[in-house]
Amino acid sequence: MSSVQNPPEHPYGRVAILGLGVMGGSLACRLSELKRAPDVVGWSRKRTERENAVLSGAINSAPDTWLEAVADADLVVLATPLRVTCQLLGPVSAAAPERATLTDVASLKCPVAKAALAAGVTDRWVGSHPMAGSEDSGFKASRPDLYNEARVWIVASSSAKSKVLGLKSFWESVGAEPRVIEAADHDRLVAIASHLPQLTANALASILAERGVIAEELGPGGRDMTRLAASGVAMWRDLLEESPPELVEGLRSLSEATKTIADQIEEGDLDALERLMRSTTTWGRST
Amino acid sequence: MSSVQNPPEHPYGRVAILGLGVMGGSLACRLSELKRAPDVVGWSRKRTERENAVLSGAINSAPDTWLEAVADADLVVLATPLRVTCQLLGPVSAAAPERATLTDVASLKCPVAKAALAAGVTDRWVGSHPMAGSEDSGFKASRPDLYNEARVWIVASSSAKSKVLGLKSFWESVGAEPRVIEAADHDRLVAIASHLPQLTANALASILAERGVIAEELGPGGRDMTRLAASGVAMWRDLLEESPPELVEGLRSLSEATKTIADQIEEGDLDALERLMRSTTTWGRST
Repeated sequence: MSSVQNPPEHPYGRVAILGLGVMGGSLACRLSELKRAPDVVGWSRKRTERENAVLSGAINSAPDTWLEAVADADLVVLATPLRVTCQLLGPVSAAAPERATLTDVASLKCPVAKAALAAGVTDRWVGSHPMAGSEDSGFKASRPDLYNEARVWIVASSSAKSKVLGLKSFWESVGAEPRVIEAADHDRLVAIASHLPQLTANALASILAERGVIAEELGPGGRDMTRLAASGVAMWRDLLEESPPELVEGLRSLSEATKTIADQIEEGDLDALERLMRSTTTWGRST
Repeated sequence: MSSVQNPPEHPYGRVAILGLGVMGGSLACRLSELKRAPDVVGWSRKRTERENAVLSGAINSAPDTWLEAVADADLVVLATPLRVTCQLLGPVSAAAPERATLTDVASLKCPVAKAALAAGVTDRWVGSHPMAGSEDSGFKASRPDLYNEARVWIVASSSAKSKVLGLKSFWESVGAEPRVIEAADHDRLVAIASHLPQLTANALASILAERGVIAEELGPGGRDMTRLAASGVAMWRDLLEESPPELVEGLRSLSEATKTIADQIEEGDLDALERLMRSTTTWGRST
């Protein structure tokens, strides 16, 4: 990818990252590696995370309060759980310089857009959703290549359009591939493409656990299919509360589909099952 | 793993591999790399696969018929689909030298054990099931490290016990980790640990396809959860016809579990959903 060899310039001299878990931590790690690295200030409500991030060299400083962190920032990245992100938008906007762009990395964008509207900050908030992450959590799980070649969905109201270009080049500078989308379209898409697979992994793992299967009895396929089951729960609870109806519809379709497969096997209707498998093989290989 | 640095000796001077897809092809590739490589003869019903395997150096020769391939073998590995494996056991046993051990790599062992009994070859058949594979198929998808650190389940009747040690050291020589198990226990385990995850991937992919999601819209989690959906159908049809009842039971449990999650989200019972997620997080991290 050309952006890796020659990362584009972005307009932010000072970046404040609030939240130093996998998402914020990995962003800081990557930024600190760049040739023309911005000044990165980090904040986490956990003192040890702040200390670890400074010691690792991922951030230049870690003030005790987010107020201090955002004080002179050109870009503020909220890398906190969804609910915290929505709560912080207004106060952060008030504390940051007028020139600052605010973004976040939550995997739903409508709730954040709503919070931005309520806080009266739609003209300076441009939402981001990087399709990247880890089933491990905390700064220790950060890695500089997390965003490499990752799609980052960008959501902005019409009054923040002038800030989109800068944010896109920021994400490109860390190797990601930004693309603009409408908030509602985005949330419908990730409910099916991301939240449904997550809950499928949890459901499948619960069956395996119930039947006494342990990880060393899994082959590579079984491991892939349950890796997400180890994902942090705190982050997910917020998201599931705000998920659009498509998630529940997807779960019900999956429930039907697995019941149908069970029926087909029991009735010996292997032709029908083969047709299903053949269609998803084509989908998996063509896309 | 110590066996990689210092692969153990095995008793087979000449190994015949019938079937040069991912399983047989990868075995041949790895064997040809060993310092003290056995003489490897390969056979596939497809001429191009035989030619590709010889050209790549993975096998020393590829006669036109399996009869010739097994004629002077110390070990015959049946790396064919389940149904073909069951059909070939008797004829291969008749054509191979009396000293030869027969094994196979099918992911169900009861049907092969039954076929071995019917063919009167239980004293020379020791079944193998390597927990390894690929969603791609054919010799071109072979790779020498496929079996590296892979669990290989070994199944033998009491009359073939003397052949188990040799076969175990054979699998160790290619980096795998063999372990003996009863056929019925094995089949119950893989129905849940391997076949259920496979069909879950197909079911999930069918929902995603139905809703127009394409692969580039998936994050790493969604990609993991649908990778298996591209697996070859021919191999699976045989397996699903012979799967033990545990597979259908697992599918029905998964159907229930996904329906329950949908209900919990719809009813706002996030506490119950959080408990489920927390339990599988613990399972995923502890195992």
